[in-house]
Amino acid sequence: MAIISIPTEPSIIATEECGKNKIKNVLSITAGFSEVGNFKAEEKLKSIIKKYNINFIGPNCLGIIDSYSRLDMIFLPKIRLKRPEKGKVSFICQSGAIGSAVLDLLSAQGLGFSKFITYGNATTINETSLLEYLGKDKNTDVICMYIEGVREGRRFIDIAKKVSKNKPIIALKGGLTESGARATLSHTASLAGSSAVYDGAFKQAGIIKAEKLHELYEFAKILEKSPKPKGNRVQVITNGGGFGIITVDNIDKDGLKTSRISKKTELFLKKKLPKECIIHNPIDLTGGATTEQYDIAIKQCLNDKNIDILLVIVLMQTPLLDINVIDKIAGYNKKSKKPIVAVMTGGSFTESQKQRLESLGVPCYAYPSDAVKSIKAFCDYYKT
Amino acid sequence: MAIISIPTEPSIIATEECGKNKIKNVLSITAGFSEVGNFKAEEKLKSIIKKYNINFIGPNCLGIIDSYSRLDMIFLPKIRLKRPEKGKVSFICQSGAIGSAVLDLLSAQGLGFSKFITYGNATTINETSLLEYLGKDKNTDVICMYIEGVREGRRFIDIAKKVSKNKPIIALKGGLTESGARATLSHTASLAGSSAVYDGAFKQAGIIKAEKLHELYEFAKILEKSPKPKGNRVQVITNGGGFGIITVDNIDKDGLKTSRISKKTELFLKKKLPKECIIHNPIDLTGGATTEQYDIAIKQCLNDKNIDILLVIVLMQTPLLDINVIDKIAGYNKKSKKPIVAVMTGGSFTESQKQRLESLGVPCYAYPSDAVKSIKAFCDYYKT
Repeated sequence: MAIISIPTEPSIIATEECGKNKIKNVLSITAGFSEVGNFKAEEKLKSIIKKYNINFIGPNCLGIIDSYSRLDMIFLPKIRLKRPEKGKVSFICQSGAIGSAVLDLLSAQGLGFSKFITYGNATTINETSLLEYLGKDKNTDVICMYIEGVREGRRFIDIAKKVSKNKPIIALKGGLTESGARATLSHTASLAGSSAVYDGAFKQAGIIKAEKLHELYEFAKILEKSPKPKGNRVQVITNGGGFGIITVDNIDKDGLKTSRISKKTELFLKKKLPKECIIHNPIDLTGGATTEQYDIAIKQCLNDKNIDILLVIVLMQTPLLDINVIDKIAGYNKKSKKPIVAVMTGGSFTESQKQRLESLGVPCYAYPSDAVKSIKAFCDYYKT
Repeated sequence: MAIISIPTEPSIIATEECGKNKIKNVLSITAGFSEVGNFKAEEKLKSIIKKYNINFIGPNCLGIIDSYSRLDMIFLPKIRLKRPEKGKVSFICQSGAIGSAVLDLLSAQGLGFSKFITYGNATTINETSLLEYLGKDKNTDVICMYIEGVREGRRFIDIAKKVSKNKPIIALKGGLTESGARATLSHTASLAGSSAVYDGAFKQAGIIKAEKLHELYEFAKILEKSPKPKGNRVQVITNGGGFGIITVDNIDKDGLKTSRISKKTELFLKKKLPKECIIHNPIDLTGGATTEQYDIAIKQCLNDKNIDILLVIVLMQTPLLDINVIDKIAGYNKKSKKPIVAVMTGGSFTESQKQRLESLGVPCYAYPSDAVKSIKAFCDYYKT
């Protein structure tokens, strides 16, 4: 395999030399092709790639990473861009900058990745071929994409339709506004297309649309970690009343359902929990909550048929709550067929426990709005 | 001053003893009043407060902090809840949990606060009195609020109208949906009111509405740090093309304007910057960007009359960019009358530089969508 990172014209010659010397896999970081209007150079490159039948990624890309084979072709220094742990989420990214910033952020949060692929101008291998490839990759369960333009519209929809039946695809489309479209043209020479066309295409193809950068990986983590839900009735358990309220506000606003606990659950929890606790939706264990009370509430809710998904808010600022609550939640999550999602908001103490809970397999979010939006995308994918 | 944190009935007796002993300032953490339906106890407490003319905060609150006088009445341990540095943003919060989690998060990010006030059931001192007080407080420039219900609607609007003329007020209202409204009743005994009524009232009163928890402090930081903008034409400078694209997408979507640089700026930058740079909106310095190139671009844009606000995206993952870029941006921000806002996305290296830039006075955001939404709130406040 060759990595090319020399100026435009010499890079074309180097590609031809690869072909002559039977190097069939080439990745090119070199810029200066169609993205700056140099279509002639790109056509020349393309004809060489075709002539020698090279598997060619780029040009104008940032590289690729496979965390399983440990192939790392990203040219950015490790001190500035951490590399991720193994995981089951892969990321196809037309923009190197977006890919690398997200990768760096995720690695810092202890989240894993499978394959990370930037592909720049997509002279031959494009988003559709990569999607097809990841659809068959055994180390990939969820696919995230950032795209600026799609080259083979019809084929893209057909492939995505097939892949999305088995693996969720989450996509963020750049250039959906007038200003954005103008900018894509000079970035990766992409024709951005209209917002309505992409909305329709994504819907047809079963692609989950991300509106914001962070939604890409926030949606991905619940889809990677949680079992298929039976429905969209969400029960909130909290030790902060206000947090519970804004969470159920979000559940209503985003079109999910707040569950109504069974009479049996209500009576049981009223008996077992202190009288200041509020047994409703949210179940508010109040600032005096202990790990034992979380244990009682979670266990009972997992057995309640009126509840499909459990959203557990854990505010570690309160003094009576010890860190065993993390292990309790993770334990239930491992055994349960119901999805459990956590919200933890706070500084360094909270952050360390949140990362621990995440590494134990529970999708965790910093804000109720992010958690609820991710649950919504999750339910939409499973059509529940 | 007395802090009361004993059970409900004894707390009423203790309040009366404070009155008899001429202790005029009392804060009560005690729960078990109207929020659990015990209106009798709350009425009794209220009559004692009135009889002795006590300045009474609570009951059912978490405490208050003043980072200037160093008064700290929060009963949560410092290892779990960090205390903030001095700043000019104050926070009135009906929910202790929301207040403390946000405070913890902000302290970890190195952001400052002035006064932090939780007030629980608001038996006598309520959100309106607190708003009036902060309106006159010389250490408060921006007011954030989380409210579940407003007791004196008319007076609240009148006071807010006055205060918001000089100081931005940002408010998040809990209980705006059916599920949320049900929950507020059992949390702080608040009648939540309808969403439409609050939207109208906020508009009349000049209050900036936050839809999500993190918007409270994200809106606050630009309003605290940046000078009044002349208009809403935003110029993006980036070293990541994809980041630039999703940013201008957000600018279009959120109703701001992408600026069109003057011919003079265009010619100057085309001469001074490498040919692969794209001089448009965004100005894309590409992955090869250096501190010097940022310097040239920022300086020129600050002098361009077609630009009102500068949004600078700094991706620290690229190897040629050194950390002096932070000091350069901060230097221009100090001298300039145009607001400069930064977006920095990434792991620990990025995060440390982002905190440094923030501490030097530049509002920084992790995502383009958050930065743009905050600029929109900022422009709306100044009606530009």
